[in-house]
Amino acid sequence: MIDRKHHPIDPWRLRENEFELENLAQSESLFALSNGHIGLRGNLDEGEPYAIPGTYLNSFYERRPLPYAEAGYGYPEQGQTLVDVTNGKLIRLMVDDSPFDIRYGELHSHERVLDFRSGILQRDADWTSPGGKRIKVRSRRLVSLTQRAIAAIEYVVEPVDQPARFVLQSELVANETQPQLSNDPRVAAALDSPLQAVSHDRDDEEIVLIHRTRSSDLLMAAGMSHEIESPGRIAVDIDVRDDWARTTIICELKPGQYLRVVKLLAYGWSSLRSETAIGDQVAAALAGARFSGWSGLVEQQKMFLDDFWDAADVEVHGHAELQQAVRFALFHVLQSGARAERRAIPSKGLTGAGYDGHTFWDTEGFVLPVLTYTMPDSAADALRWRHSILDQAKERAAALGLRGAAFPWRTIRGQECSAYWPAGTAAFHLNADIAEAVIRYHTATGDDQFIEDVGLELLVETARLWMSLGHHDRRGRWHIAGVTGPDEYSAVADDNVFTNLMASKNLRAAAEFAVLHPAKARALSVDAEEEAAWRDAASDVYIPYDEELGVHPQAEGFTGHAEWDFEASNGYPLMLHHPYFELYRKQVIKQADVMLATYWCGEHFTPEEKARNFDYYERLTVRDSSLSACVQAVMAAEVGHLDLAYDYAYEAALIDLLDLHHNTRDGLHMASLGGAWTALVAGFGGLRSREGKLCFNPALPAGMTQLAFSIRWRGARLRVEIRQDEVTYAVHNGADVEVTLTHAGEELTVTSAEPVTRPVERRKPLLPRPTQPPGREPLSALGGTLPA
Amino acid sequence: MIDRKHHPIDPWRLRENEFELENLAQSESLFALSNGHIGLRGNLDEGEPYAIPGTYLNSFYERRPLPYAEAGYGYPEQGQTLVDVTNGKLIRLMVDDSPFDIRYGELHSHERVLDFRSGILQRDADWTSPGGKRIKVRSRRLVSLTQRAIAAIEYVVEPVDQPARFVLQSELVANETQPQLSNDPRVAAALDSPLQAVSHDRDDEEIVLIHRTRSSDLLMAAGMSHEIESPGRIAVDIDVRDDWARTTIICELKPGQYLRVVKLLAYGWSSLRSETAIGDQVAAALAGARFSGWSGLVEQQKMFLDDFWDAADVEVHGHAELQQAVRFALFHVLQSGARAERRAIPSKGLTGAGYDGHTFWDTEGFVLPVLTYTMPDSAADALRWRHSILDQAKERAAALGLRGAAFPWRTIRGQECSAYWPAGTAAFHLNADIAEAVIRYHTATGDDQFIEDVGLELLVETARLWMSLGHHDRRGRWHIAGVTGPDEYSAVADDNVFTNLMASKNLRAAAEFAVLHPAKARALSVDAEEEAAWRDAASDVYIPYDEELGVHPQAEGFTGHAEWDFEASNGYPLMLHHPYFELYRKQVIKQADVMLATYWCGEHFTPEEKARNFDYYERLTVRDSSLSACVQAVMAAEVGHLDLAYDYAYEAALIDLLDLHHNTRDGLHMASLGGAWTALVAGFGGLRSREGKLCFNPALPAGMTQLAFSIRWRGARLRVEIRQDEVTYAVHNGADVEVTLTHAGEELTVTSAEPVTRPVERRKPLLPRPTQPPGREPLSALGGTLPA
Repeated sequence: MIDRKHHPIDPWRLRENEFELENLAQSESLFALSNGHIGLRGNLDEGEPYAIPGTYLNSFYERRPLPYAEAGYGYPEQGQTLVDVTNGKLIRLMVDDSPFDIRYGELHSHERVLDFRSGILQRDADWTSPGGKRIKVRSRRLVSLTQRAIAAIEYVVEPVDQPARFVLQSELVANETQPQLSNDPRVAAALDSPLQAVSHDRDDEEIVLIHRTRSSDLLMAAGMSHEIESPGRIAVDIDVRDDWARTTIICELKPGQYLRVVKLLAYGWSSLRSETAIGDQVAAALAGARFSGWSGLVEQQKMFLDDFWDAADVEVHGHAELQQAVRFALFHVLQSGARAERRAIPSKGLTGAGYDGHTFWDTEGFVLPVLTYTMPDSAADALRWRHSILDQAKERAAALGLRGAAFPWRTIRGQECSAYWPAGTAAFHLNADIAEAVIRYHTATGDDQFIEDVGLELLVETARLWMSLGHHDRRGRWHIAGVTGPDEYSAVADDNVFTNLMASKNLRAAAEFAVLHPAKARALSVDAEEEAAWRDAASDVYIPYDEELGVHPQAEGFTGHAEWDFEASNGYPLMLHHPYFELYRKQVIKQADVMLATYWCGEHFTPEEKARNFDYYERLTVRDSSLSACVQAVMAAEVGHLDLAYDYAYEAALIDLLDLHHNTRDGLHMASLGGAWTALVAGFGGLRSREGKLCFNPALPAGMTQLAFSIRWRGARLRVEIRQDEVTYAVHNGADVEVTLTHAGEELTVTSAEPVTRPVERRKPLLPRPTQPPGREPLSALGGTLPA
Repeated sequence: MIDRKHHPIDPWRLRENEFELENLAQSESLFALSNGHIGLRGNLDEGEPYAIPGTYLNSFYERRPLPYAEAGYGYPEQGQTLVDVTNGKLIRLMVDDSPFDIRYGELHSHERVLDFRSGILQRDADWTSPGGKRIKVRSRRLVSLTQRAIAAIEYVVEPVDQPARFVLQSELVANETQPQLSNDPRVAAALDSPLQAVSHDRDDEEIVLIHRTRSSDLLMAAGMSHEIESPGRIAVDIDVRDDWARTTIICELKPGQYLRVVKLLAYGWSSLRSETAIGDQVAAALAGARFSGWSGLVEQQKMFLDDFWDAADVEVHGHAELQQAVRFALFHVLQSGARAERRAIPSKGLTGAGYDGHTFWDTEGFVLPVLTYTMPDSAADALRWRHSILDQAKERAAALGLRGAAFPWRTIRGQECSAYWPAGTAAFHLNADIAEAVIRYHTATGDDQFIEDVGLELLVETARLWMSLGHHDRRGRWHIAGVTGPDEYSAVADDNVFTNLMASKNLRAAAEFAVLHPAKARALSVDAEEEAAWRDAASDVYIPYDEELGVHPQAEGFTGHAEWDFEASNGYPLMLHHPYFELYRKQVIKQADVMLATYWCGEHFTPEEKARNFDYYERLTVRDSSLSACVQAVMAAEVGHLDLAYDYAYEAALIDLLDLHHNTRDGLHMASLGGAWTALVAGFGGLRSREGKLCFNPALPAGMTQLAFSIRWRGARLRVEIRQDEVTYAVHNGADVEVTLTHAGEELTVTSAEPVTRPVERRKPLLPRPTQPPGREPLSALGGTLPA
């Protein structure tokens, strides 16, 4: 966990004003830069010390074997792992005879600042070398949001009180040593030096290294180009080998003089294009970046971010730490999706190789809700990526004996990479989550072309999957047996409430959109009989209900299971201390499941059912998953436990800053960071979209004086300002824009000319605030200083 | 499948009168010899050609890694694999310049005969070498049932029409080349040359090679000793290296002369004893065998088998093929258990290394019923082996967070080696099957000392396991959630009927025996409260029942699942063509589950329920497991489908002779062979033991004129002779022996002086003969020549 003393709260920046070697891995993730295409972990310029070196290109992966002691039909045999590509971040420095390494000599000060408005990571070091030369180093690093293939570093070094000789080595290095990822020698072999040298090229302007992965056969190029500024004589030397390239810059500086180097980096990769094409592509990107120059790149970055924040900012008054955290969260969600452009958004973004760099339902379920309302084109792109892997999803369905498309539980390139089917293959709800994201995006944007292009096909093929997964019983009720819902401490159960409701929604939407897009529907071989079958199954769906307890069992029979003995638990996360066998058969919940159903399919539950379900499941949920707190925040707010919702919003937002899951080192939890936005906007703002309508029902917890946020809705930028007792809806773009919404059930029309203010009703919970499993209470948002 | 033309039916022998290279692997299993301690596959004396070379010592295994692409808590990390130990079967022969290899030259005739009464495998070859010398070879091989460490071969060769020079090489060879068992290089590495040479020793009498396994650290010794008989000059040469030893015998023979070599083999192994001790043990065994000589060993073998058949023979009149098959089956079951002596009885016996040589519930469920009634001391020994691994079972339970003992689903040495928990760990019924075997053995023998020694502790520790697996619901019903029953096409379901009934029986028996053995119970810390809790849970057990269908669902909710689409099945066994996901969620059954419950816990079902359950499940059961046909035979007979029972009995008995599961090459299916006995004795004989009583209710199918069998019951040898319309019960050992039994509900007392004859009532089924899934009908026992 970062030490707050050294990370002062700042509303728009993440600052670290003292270097902490023990938190290096975490800080590498926190300070990661990305545009969704290139990802650079916050490794130090000089490369060492490091915890996990990381330079990633979205979807650039290597295959590896998936071993099974007892294999089964349909088990995937090949995994995919994000590759640490050629590192272009490296700028090593020699001061006289001493390498600049902050573990040696004396470090007078060291500060790193990630600015959410400029998109720049700045680092300042004041250091005396073991040889006694004091220097100042300032580096500024960006991954361009406007030039997708480009990252850039401005590196400035100066002597403080004595002249010194500086040798700066700016490098490209392929096949860096990695911490070992697996004990399996075959896996380790596949990922050891994954890049095979293809060629390298240099001219006066730039150096390009081209590599290829052994098994996945992907080609990549990394290029660098430098601008050098310094008084006096400079020598420049260039050395290029298969796996590395080095531009060496030598000069002598007196106090008052400085050496400034701008390093432009370009990356490109392809599974199709030739070596020449990839090399040219990188050279072109470098030429474009040189044309903009450092200052041009900085300016473009600022403009891009200004526009983003204008439509996306969330202001939290009364909680400076949460204010900072939610902007940190939004910034990283932006980075993960901004320029992913029909590539996957991994669960860690490009901030680390945790979970092998795979994409899960986190994207559609937790990241796309934010992007849909703040950067809708990115949400559309992410769904176009799903559409691009439809062939693999259809093949997977066919291999499983199912119809339609079965999207992979975890993947980079589209193939299923989950090696544990009860929590992978069986978690078919992923497909309905994709459908939900399609519906959500279309509702928020009205983008009919998207439906024509990809949306309808996604709905249709997932609907076909559900039809082959479900069946009618003798009484005409439609069931889905033997699947796994969101909660990963249950698996392979009948009639999971969430899955059944979501499948039903998926089927209904497929039928509705097929009717609206008849030509496209025909092209997909949908006919009226198929649409009717979808509607029938959707309306016949069976939703188990425990009459005695007045709650919905997570799946059939769940509420009859033995209760988990929390007092006897051996430690958390439970899955590291108890077998799946025990977890699955008892009432203990890793993450929101019925609660998520009451959020996403809220219209199927009465307020009393929501309150009772929340109360029941809150007592069973241990939040060993990072996908839980944000959902609990939303539903806690809806059922009136606003203070508890506050705690969960805080937990979701601070997950990585406080390293609450002890694995921020492997990358940031994009779903939880996205969920922080959801906790505030859907929780306290009460944002829902129901039957095409934009709905709000705001209420703030004690201690939060104001919550203001902007969202994008069908071309409008709507600002919602919630105070304890009233809320103002305003449109802040264009003159003739109007938004129709409901506030607490009342339909309103808001125009750019006329903001609307309405009172906020005090929310009263039906039941008292529930308790959590012992030891699993959320952190208090108010740190115990205000009444909870 | 063997070709019946070359395997003429013979009531007491398995004959192969023509060599079939394509069936070599199968015949190596069929002709395997074993005493439960040593196992020799039916490899040819000269070693080649071979399919799978195999020389096994019970429980002599090597460890190997169990790899997981996604590991989980409690997954076993080490597997165990039966090792092919030093091969002492080898006797190579050179005739002039040609090695005796039946693939070359001309084979005039070749016959192998396994005699079930002598226990000897005899081979006769009449062969002309490529060089034109015609010879006759006769070898006879036995694995001694009376001298546990000893196997012996009598090898006789003679020239037919010309003089020839013979060089006979009798060998011990360690680390034979094996067909590859795994694609995993780590596994292959662990099992490649598993034996490390420790030492070798020779003197005039014998040669001993000592080896050790690398990882499991087991020490073994193999020794050989020869008697040579030949006219004229003989030269003998001995050569010993680390991994092989060779005794070379050279002579010249004229027609009418022969060379006879008796090779005595001894094996020993230990995890504890020293190299010297193991070496001495083998030398002593050889000395003992030399003292008996070949003829002594042959005579002892015959005496042992005469006694066995006297108490165990089954006569089937009207079906010569089934008559042969059931004796073949009994002979192999005998071989698997005769001298196992507190070692495991693997699912393949010692006839092959299929399933890694592991022991499953097959032993208690399918093999011990036979041994209990035919060779009860062997059944006791097998249960004493279970008791010997109680510590590992307790450790496993503790690791899983459970109490009592959780016996391994598959193992050699006691540690869980199952790498797929839904069909391994979760199949806890294994523990109740062990309890059932304890109860069965005690009922049949009245052996109270066994209960004191090991039986009560097995019952108590398994009862404790069930108490931690089950729970009471709000209405006081006792459930077992999330476990896997016998049917492996379902898994991790709630309230599996079989498991719940068996657990209940286990608990009740633990309480009853604890009351009867109070001192032992106290020593096991059982008190009256614990006994009461066992009785309560047992009587509160919840048994799901589908009122609408009038059948018991295999587990809660089963009868509401979608039906399997048999027409669309891709092939059998289904698990090689469909994912577990699909199999588990649909109504399709690999092997008897509810049917087994109606057999083993028959008192819990009315005759009508049995009939309806049989009818319902028969239509869903594909018998992809070899543990099914015999149970279906028993229940088919009970519900009155005697012709169908006949078909299943035939299938169970012929499983390996006809290679019905296409894997006889890897070893014989001991459970099905044991099941053949059960199909006849419990099926047509109606043998049950209920509340301590021996019950019969016989009925024969059309075409079977008589079924006679002997069983052992509390010191008596009872012969039951069933004809179509009457049955005779007779005691045939001792003068004062009497047996009380019930015949069709009527209590009878049978003494050696007075056999009792009773009429057999014609059995009428409640429902018509059910159909099986298309294409999964059993073979017709009567081959379509008689009305089915």
